[in-house]
Amino acid sequence: MQYFEDMPLGSRTESTETYTFTAEEIKEFAAKWDPMPFHLDEELAKNTPVGGLFSASTHNLAVGIRLTHTIMDDDVAAIAALGWNDIKFPKPIFAGDTVRLVTEVVEHRESKSKPDRGIVTSLNQLINQHGELVAEYKVATMVLKRPV
Amino acid sequence: MQYFEDMPLGSRTESTETYTFTAEEIKEFAAKWDPMPFHLDEELAKNTPVGGLFSASTHNLAVGIRLTHTIMDDDVAAIAALGWNDIKFPKPIFAGDTVRLVTEVVEHRESKSKPDRGIVTSLNQLINQHGELVAEYKVATMVLKRPV
Repeated sequence: MQYFEDMPLGSRTESTETYTFTAEEIKEFAAKWDPMPFHLDEELAKNTPVGGLFSASTHNLAVGIRLTHTIMDDDVAAIAALGWNDIKFPKPIFAGDTVRLVTEVVEHRESKSKPDRGIVTSLNQLINQHGELVAEYKVATMVLKRPV
Repeated sequence: MQYFEDMPLGSRTESTETYTFTAEEIKEFAAKWDPMPFHLDEELAKNTPVGGLFSASTHNLAVGIRLTHTIMDDDVAAIAALGWNDIKFPKPIFAGDTVRLVTEVVEHRESKSKPDRGIVTSLNQLINQHGELVAEYKVATMVLKRPV
């Protein structure tokens, strides 16, 4: 089990697995959850400012969470998900792009009211095959301290 | 086309459609994107503090975006998605729950550098069949002003 003490400020992990976005999956995901024409139609997408078929924002987040599972080598003693913040999509993810996840602890503080727990915030970044940042989000989690 | 001027501060819309989370879809979504045991196994989920099978966070966001499409009766003159913020999941969404989307403009300001556009931030809330807030998130979008 991974406790509050095991996730110090600045600790950084990177997914060993990557994820490749196929045109088929981009269209399938968007058809169900975010049916914008530029997520559904390659020809139409070519004629937008973005210039090509790209994935829905929620698809990007889903891939980020999926990759998280490939770097959690141990269960986290999480009690509650406090929220997500600062979600940005600086560049589109195009069909054929491959991303990896880099995650870093950017906040690590003890709970003021409960001495047995703390709050850990991670910055999660998806990086494409060109080394470009394509999506990022922060996740704050309440985590138990190691039992004494 | 819906322009910056058409989305004043405080304007509020509600989805006419609702969305019902089935156990089958909760498990299918989670198996692909967020394979936590309590999103995959009803019997196991019953014995957690949450007390039942509930949906993945990304699943909730995907449903929110999907419902957005049911209240956009007109295209928005959006130029760029600036980011999402303040994402919270105050209560779980259980199998069988039905949610609707309420969206409100909480920020409406002109661009400082470009007079032809402004920034519109909406607070989006998913409400279940008991009237409880189960998920919320803010989306900031850069929107063109009506051409003169």
